[in-house]
Amino acid sequence: MRFSVMTLFPEMIESSMNSSITGRALENNLISLDVYNIRDYSLDKHKKVDDYPYGGGAGMLMFPQPIYDCYKAIEERINAGDSSGKKPRVIYLSPKGKIFNQAMAKELSQEDDLIFLCGHYEGIDQRVLDTIVTDEVSIGDYVLTGGELPALVMMDTISRLVPGVLNNEESSQDESHSAGLLEYPQYTRPAEWMGKKVPDVLVSGNHALIAKWRMEQSLEVTKKNRPDMFEKYINSQQG
Amino acid sequence: MRFSVMTLFPEMIESSMNSSITGRALENNLISLDVYNIRDYSLDKHKKVDDYPYGGGAGMLMFPQPIYDCYKAIEERINAGDSSGKKPRVIYLSPKGKIFNQAMAKELSQEDDLIFLCGHYEGIDQRVLDTIVTDEVSIGDYVLTGGELPALVMMDTISRLVPGVLNNEESSQDESHSAGLLEYPQYTRPAEWMGKKVPDVLVSGNHALIAKWRMEQSLEVTKKNRPDMFEKYINSQQG
Repeated sequence: MRFSVMTLFPEMIESSMNSSITGRALENNLISLDVYNIRDYSLDKHKKVDDYPYGGGAGMLMFPQPIYDCYKAIEERINAGDSSGKKPRVIYLSPKGKIFNQAMAKELSQEDDLIFLCGHYEGIDQRVLDTIVTDEVSIGDYVLTGGELPALVMMDTISRLVPGVLNNEESSQDESHSAGLLEYPQYTRPAEWMGKKVPDVLVSGNHALIAKWRMEQSLEVTKKNRPDMFEKYINSQQG
Repeated sequence: MRFSVMTLFPEMIESSMNSSITGRALENNLISLDVYNIRDYSLDKHKKVDDYPYGGGAGMLMFPQPIYDCYKAIEERINAGDSSGKKPRVIYLSPKGKIFNQAMAKELSQEDDLIFLCGHYEGIDQRVLDTIVTDEVSIGDYVLTGGELPALVMMDTISRLVPGVLNNEESSQDESHSAGLLEYPQYTRPAEWMGKKVPDVLVSGNHALIAKWRMEQSLEVTKKNRPDMFEKYINSQQG
């Protein structure tokens, strides 16, 4: 999996991706990352990348030229190592996009190349989006200052699905989520902490009882925190 | 607004928050950030922070002691500057939490202090969560390698709602989202790019026509990318 990121804040992408689990995955060549500063591609003598919107309105927009030229440079680099001529997916992070979820992450983790386009200011001229973007994606119903954190969220989620990226200690938390329920509460040592004991059932050694207790707890937390998910689960069980 | 973050990866929080718009807000003292390394509070001689789960299952869990002692240190620091004795909100980032959205961001932006707890591995012992956490929050239906990126997403979203953090050029993109529709496409110079012209209506100077066109475009993109949001909007208009 090779990630290419177009951004105005390359150091933000690099420092985050080089941390923690994605950092180890980069070191072990399980994933790779190329970060492109959109400003470097501006033909404007002041390296300007934004201008006022047509039709009025607050804020500035990123204009097409630097983004398009940056994209062409990435496309050329990708095609140099791959003669299939397959057009890589280009993901534009935006509050207007389809909502990102684990199923989309799984699908995207099958690709060899993913290009992320991070916007800033009020957005990006629609013509360049129409020309290069294959997927417009939003990570949730909230508004961020730019596309960098959403791109990092997507790359982190996708990276942990790449074989070898997670070790046993990190395991794979997807199971409960993919079963359509939230995870049960978990406990570790000490058996008693500040007067609070680990639930008896978990130290009983009775695996059937433990499984039953965990299922009940999963149902309870899902009902409380995610009534939408709970309803969907109940319907699927009755269907 | 003062953010306090409990994490095993302090440099990831610091480097991202010091970038771009949040970086400028920190420099201008519009927000402040204190990052705490949970590992520093471990009383284990090897500074261990995780152990095996009771009842079996894959992965490791963070045990209570270092997290609780880290929390007490933050609480003491906050109370030193504030005699109101008000308990600060402690947000635990987890796939089990309530889903973060713009309304929650607005509500949280009214607080003076927010503490974020970033988990790693399979999660955190439930007893320490029950003791200190006031809000369990998920940024979306996908699984990340840790709580750092979700904490950054929340701090970024909340920061831009703090007065003075955004300048005019960045403006505030919330309006379309809060009206319950996605934003219309935007265009900037040049008027023609690679044979593609800016829509005539936007250069017409007719503000009523521009508003009408933008509304139609908003409805169209919402219907296409977010049928859930579109249905809700249509129902609210008929209600």
